[in-house]
Parts: sequence; structure tokens; C-alpha cells
Amino acid sequence: MNRENLIQQIRLKKSFLCVGLDPDLAKIPAHLHEEQDPIYAFGKAIIDATHKYCVAYKPNFAFYEALGEPGMESLRKTLEYIPQECFTIADAKRGDIGNTAAQYAQSVFDKEKSGFDFDSITVAPYMGEDSVTPFYSYPDKWVILLGLTSNSGSHDFQQLPLTNGKRLFEQVIETSSKWGNPGNTMYVVGATRGEDIAAVRKLVPEHFFLVPGVGAQGGSLSEVVEFGMNQDCGLLINSSRGIIYAGSDENFGQAAGKAAHDLQVKMEAHLREKSIISVMD
Amino acid sequence: MNRENLIQQIRLKKSFLCVGLDPDLAKIPAHLHEEQDPIYAFGKAIIDATHKYCVAYKPNFAFYEALGEPGMESLRKTLEYIPQECFTIADAKRGDIGNTAAQYAQSVFDKEKSGFDFDSITVAPYMGEDSVTPFYSYPDKWVILLGLTSNSGSHDFQQLPLTNGKRLFEQVIETSSKWGNPGNTMYVVGATRGEDIAAVRKLVPEHFFLVPGVGAQGGSLSEVVEFGMNQDCGLLINSSRGIIYAGSDENFGQAAGKAAHDLQVKMEAHLREKSIISVMD
Repeated sequence: MNRENLIQQIRLKKSFLCVGLDPDLAKIPAHLHEEQDPIYAFGKAIIDATHKYCVAYKPNFAFYEALGEPGMESLRKTLEYIPQECFTIADAKRGDIGNTAAQYAQSVFDKEKSGFDFDSITVAPYMGEDSVTPFYSYPDKWVILLGLTSNSGSHDFQQLPLTNGKRLFEQVIETSSKWGNPGNTMYVVGATRGEDIAAVRKLVPEHFFLVPGVGAQGGSLSEVVEFGMNQDCGLLINSSRGIIYAGSDENFGQAAGKAAHDLQVKMEAHLREKSIISVMD
Repeated sequence: MNRENLIQQIRLKKSFLCVGLDPDLAKIPAHLHEEQDPIYAFGKAIIDATHKYCVAYKPNFAFYEALGEPGMESLRKTLEYIPQECFTIADAKRGDIGNTAAQYAQSVFDKEKSGFDFDSITVAPYMGEDSVTPFYSYPDKWVILLGLTSNSGSHDFQQLPLTNGKRLFEQVIETSSKWGNPGNTMYVVGATRGEDIAAVRKLVPEHFFLVPGVGAQGGSLSEVVEFGMNQDCGLLINSSRGIIYAGSDENFGQAAGKAAHDLQVKMEAHLREKSIISVMD
């Protein structure tokens, strides 16, 4: 999916919500364990309930890989079930040297060879340029680089001050932004501190941000919008646990749909306020 | 496998060689394409030819994932074929927040749930402590943290100077060495510059290093030994392409065995020189 289509979807659906799929056998509703493929059944119900309210889905590879080969089959079926108009993110956080990165690109982008054709993949940029550029050889596919994450450990290294006056995450974003462009690169920018989001927005005014940490991790939607939104929206706000585990019984789909709808309504208000959609939309 | 057993294997086999398995359908000998599972057939032949000369195998996940679910089946069968006395490394370079890291740990360490029971996994430490510690909850399993890599992109960020006078990779190693101990943590330290290896050895005198870059990438075995070896050897030197693609026809196994044996002979000399094995061994 290209940038223009993504922006069009945001305007159409009046939403910049990404639903994160972290299906955990220990957390999904009990009745699903009777299904032949509980992980797929869970994902399918979540997608049915939420796809009107979101523009993207982000399956977290760890939760599928933890179940071995059957987990990868569940992931493939889940990806195939996601409606065509939704942007898909392989949340795999890959990062390795050039010839290996090319294989990882094939694993998520080349359906004929791997069975997967995601629109994008999350990539850790710390091994440098040759670990990222192989992903750019697939047209209309995206690299989503870890800029600043929202976990407690993000303070261990990402915030370290360099001798040139920048913090590490700022240098990573500045350097890596030259490897691609705003049409094939996004950044993961955690929602925990408004001033950090503002700092990243200054470095890369046009790029989309994939923002985790709203809701469960304490980030505020209004703050992210205030400091991170640009003229094309430029934001995909991810919510995983807050949506997919909103309910824990047989009505979990309904609960997930409600949680996604609640967020969409707030997002629509922000899109209107910033004139990204007009009263006519 | 615990540290004592690993050191014992190094002494028994007079080798600290790790064979990297990067099976690429475009590079394996043509006749293997007639096999039902060419990738497994290739790995099996390489293991048969090399296991006497090495103490570890390092399958590179990207090359298996690039083939989708069948690739993961090839990986599982290959892992099962590796002799019990060999240390196994899941070269997956995972790195994500705490609850996700726990799932990645299950994906490589919990055979009952995922089908895989590697001895260790390579992990990218840049997301900080909570992205690493979940891997420590499996006894006798190891985390191999990216310290300093040997690719061209390693200069983009890893070598950046911090305001405290350290370079980023030095800070990463110093901080992360407190999360585990030399019995459950190793570092990836590229072979390209002797002085860098010496700097890391000073920070973590007891830890094992997994060293890529000898051979194909230009690193020198003698230099790595000079600057990196400690009283327990403390080194696993990886060779991938130099061994597995030493031959390209039906005798590829023999060629791989010879390449591994040549390295083992040199390693044995270094082990004697440093009195890690004696004339009696």
C-alpha cells in the first residue's frame, strides 16, 4: 500500500487506529480453545469486530512464533483474513546484516516464497544502514524503524547523550531518515512523553509515526496528536491489549469493537480539529 | 548446556568453532533440489561433515523464515539432527519489550510449546533491560547479546561517542553485563578490529564472545585469539559461508568438512599455546 492510499483510508474511515494482534493462549476467551485453531479464531473475531474502526493491523510475531509451526500457520491465515483496504504491519523487529536482512525481507514481503505479503515490517536500525536498505527493494512496502520505544528499558540506551549534543534516538532517526523517504519509512515513537514526540516530529516532519503506548502503557491520545500530527495525519496509533482483551468471555468481539469504536470517535474529532477531514466528510 | 559443559566440549574437541547455517536455495548444490526437503538435506550433510570439528551450530533464522512454514519445519528437523554435545544458537536477533520478549523466549527454548529447544538465542539489547531479562528464566539457556557487530553499518551507531567518554557499544556491554552473568550471557563481538575486541574483553573478562567475521568478512583468527581469548577460551568463532559453501557440487560435504577441519587445526594450536589444553590432551 502506498502513502496516498494510506492517507485516503484514514480520511475514509476517519481513524488512524492500528489494532495490535498479540494473541496469547493464556488470555484468549476459554470457549475458543474448542476451536481447531484458537489463535486464528480469535484473530478472525477481532478483525470482524474492529475493521470498520481501524486502518491498520499489527500482528506481533512473537505471539505466533511462540507456538511454533502451527503458530505461523495461524499468522498466515490471520493475515489473509485482514481486509484488503487495511495496512498490515509485520511486528517482527528484525535487524541483521545485509545478506540476512534480504532474507528477512523475503520472509514478510514475498508471498510466493514465504506465504506472507505484509505491507510493512518493524526493523531495529542499530546495526546500521546495510541492515535496513534491503527492505526497500520491494515497491510499495514500508520499513518501520524503531525510533524511541515506550518501554521502561528505553531509558537504558535510547536516551543516552552523544558528544554532538543529540540523544541517541535523535541521531538514529536523523541518520536513518536518509536511507529511505516518507513514502517507504515510518518510525516507532512511543507515546509516553510529549516533548520527545515533538523532538522526533521536528527531525522528520513528513514521516508517519507508529505510536505504541496509548492506553495500557499510559500515553495520552491528545498529547500524541498535539505533538505528533502533521498535515497528512502522519500517525498510526496502536492499541493491542486495550482492544483485543477488552472482553474476556463469549462477547469479547463486541467488547473489542466497542473499544476500537471509542478510540475512532476520539480520533475523528482530532482529524476534524486539525482540518484533515472537513465537515463535508 | 551450561558453561562447564561447553568448556569441556572445547577441550575434548580441541576446537572453539561454530558453524553458521545460512542455507540459501540459490546457493546450495543443484543436486539437492531433487530432495523432498533440500534445506534439511543440505543442513544434514553439513552437520555430518563438520560435527567432529566444531562445538556449536548457529542456524540463521532469516534463511529458514524466508521459506515460510516449510522453512520452519526444515529448521526444526535440522535442530533435532544436531548432535546432543553441540551447543546450539538460535541466530534470530530478537529484541522487543518485556511481555513480547517472554514469547520470543518460549519460541526458541520451550520445546513443548514451540517445537524448539535451542541452547541460546542472539538478542538485540537496544530496547533495554526488560527486552532481555525474560530470556533468563530458562535454566541452562543463554542470551547472546549484540555487542559490536562486524558489518559496515556497525559504524553508523555502535561506535558513536557518548558524553561519558565511552562509545555506545561499550556502554551497552557494561550496562547489560549486570542483567545476567558469564554463565548465561555471551556477546557478539565482530572480528574486524583487534583493539575493539580488546576493549570489550576488558569490560567483560569472563564472558564468552561469539565472533563473526573471521574468513569471509576479513577478520583474522590470530588477532581474535590474541585480544579475545581468556582462561576458559571464552571464544566461539563463527564461520558460515566459508564452510557451508566451500564446495558447490556433489562433494560439498567433503569440502565443508575440510574447511572446518582446517580451522579446527589452527584453533587447537591456539588452545595449546594458551595452555587451555595441555600436551596430555
